[in-house]
Amino acid sequence: MKNKVLNYLKEKNEFISGQAISKALKVSRTAVWKYIKQLQKDGYAVEAISRRGYKLSGSPDKIFPDLVRKGLKTKIFGREIVYFESVDSTMNEAARLAIQGAKEGVVVCAETQIHGRGRLGRSWVSAQGKGIYFSVILRPRVILAEASCLTLVFAVAVCQAIRLVTGLDTKIKWPNDILIGQKKVVGILTELNAELDRIHFIILGVGINVTGQISSLLANATSLEKEAGQKVSRVFLLQEILRQMEKYYQLFHAQGFAPVAGAWRSLSATLNTQVKVVELNKATEGLAMDIDNQGALLIKEKNGAIIRKVSGDVVHCRVKK
Amino acid sequence: MKNKVLNYLKEKNEFISGQAISKALKVSRTAVWKYIKQLQKDGYAVEAISRRGYKLSGSPDKIFPDLVRKGLKTKIFGREIVYFESVDSTMNEAARLAIQGAKEGVVVCAETQIHGRGRLGRSWVSAQGKGIYFSVILRPRVILAEASCLTLVFAVAVCQAIRLVTGLDTKIKWPNDILIGQKKVVGILTELNAELDRIHFIILGVGINVTGQISSLLANATSLEKEAGQKVSRVFLLQEILRQMEKYYQLFHAQGFAPVAGAWRSLSATLNTQVKVVELNKATEGLAMDIDNQGALLIKEKNGAIIRKVSGDVVHCRVKK
Repeated sequence: MKNKVLNYLKEKNEFISGQAISKALKVSRTAVWKYIKQLQKDGYAVEAISRRGYKLSGSPDKIFPDLVRKGLKTKIFGREIVYFESVDSTMNEAARLAIQGAKEGVVVCAETQIHGRGRLGRSWVSAQGKGIYFSVILRPRVILAEASCLTLVFAVAVCQAIRLVTGLDTKIKWPNDILIGQKKVVGILTELNAELDRIHFIILGVGINVTGQISSLLANATSLEKEAGQKVSRVFLLQEILRQMEKYYQLFHAQGFAPVAGAWRSLSATLNTQVKVVELNKATEGLAMDIDNQGALLIKEKNGAIIRKVSGDVVHCRVKK
Repeated sequence: MKNKVLNYLKEKNEFISGQAISKALKVSRTAVWKYIKQLQKDGYAVEAISRRGYKLSGSPDKIFPDLVRKGLKTKIFGREIVYFESVDSTMNEAARLAIQGAKEGVVVCAETQIHGRGRLGRSWVSAQGKGIYFSVILRPRVILAEASCLTLVFAVAVCQAIRLVTGLDTKIKWPNDILIGQKKVVGILTELNAELDRIHFIILGVGINVTGQISSLLANATSLEKEAGQKVSRVFLLQEILRQMEKYYQLFHAQGFAPVAGAWRSLSATLNTQVKVVELNKATEGLAMDIDNQGALLIKEKNGAIIRKVSGDVVHCRVKK
């Protein structure tokens, strides 16, 4: 009913009395007043002038599920969206739902996270309303050994979606950071709940810096609006990301990793550069040659040896001509 | 101090006055009395006769950490043991400890579990004091694709340990059930906490039917004592299992899956039999030919096609001569 009141106000787009709303929607005037209060609390600017009534003069900059689902046209990703103004971590919330049996494609998003997580136990800064922070439940029909490349599949999807919506020249740093120039705008995290012979579910988490100044703590980060020099709609961007995710995920299930790997290569900021890959306390240096069919990075060391890295942090040293 | 009182009673092996204990251990007589009460509560039979004092006349049939650690001689497995009379699930408890940073090899064991888990979300009946129910924290230094065979590594370890302690002709049903004849005595479960490019930890869970009648609900189950026709010490068995686990786990890390796979083959009840492997609603029937280097089962169908199964439930049809 709150949405009905909202839609009625949108439709009229002028001052309309509480009585008229009450009559049109067949609810009491007290109820109308309550729903208007709720909408204002949600961030909608509803003007109220005595004898003239109510008028919607502004929508909140929020990634409300209704807004995201409108015109989304996916079959799996984002058909159900669980929204929080603030949450401990969308990863934890999505995992909790998945354990309770939530379906593949369910999205948990939040305006801010109190304990946002990054890869390898790091934290992820989630400034209120300044980014897109969401997790998706996946139930891939593959075995453990085949799942490792999924992290690259979704890097391609997010990278492509940002390109489509903003026109920015985003690139992927192996395995799944998304950069503009050498600065990070997106982090992707993939956590697994599985037995050794069966995946129960995967939670894919995405954090995107959309707007505002990036904390000085994050010297190597930037935001989409800073780079684009204009406003980026978080709702439209999230919609496109969900569409691209569904597209590449279905491609992966239908044809395996090879076609996605091709897309990854063409978007890669890492291949053909000198890299240092740090894992635990060990560093491997050399030329990033290619990825293999499990998504591992193949590095050619100075002495000609090819090293295969499955995990680690990449430092891009300099572009190799 | 409770253990000091216990050891003193064990040492003396006759009636000894509270006053003598108090003097020998330098604690008050009230304290001695309290410790005796605690020992009785733990299940120790301590006789108390006025003017004669106390005598230890029986130890409880419990898998107390102190008893298990005595003479264990492992370096990793069971160096730390967390014991519960009753617990929700040793899997959950071990996972909780692992998230808090508990080391590899930490064991969580319980006399009974309220919600013991089996593979694929099934439950595991954990009758009070009638089995060994424990979980071990593992932090293997391998990637996801290499971890899938760990479940077979531990099946070999448990199977060998039971053979050494009881002399029973235990066999392994792929992937990791342990059978005597066609009846199950051990279930093994391996749950994973990981990102797609890094294993945080694995919780290995083992449930063993040691003693007593098996519920009629479990027609295909038996217990070690029923099969052996004699008493089996749960403490000695758990010790040997921890030793064998450490041995095969180290072998796997040092030399890979090949040598362990050899041991698995020689203990297999599945190879060279006609099998039906049921996964979700799909069944594959044929001759179980071999396992591959990821621990997957290779099945030759009637039409000669070789099917590779990574997960599923095996039904042994009949022995193929």
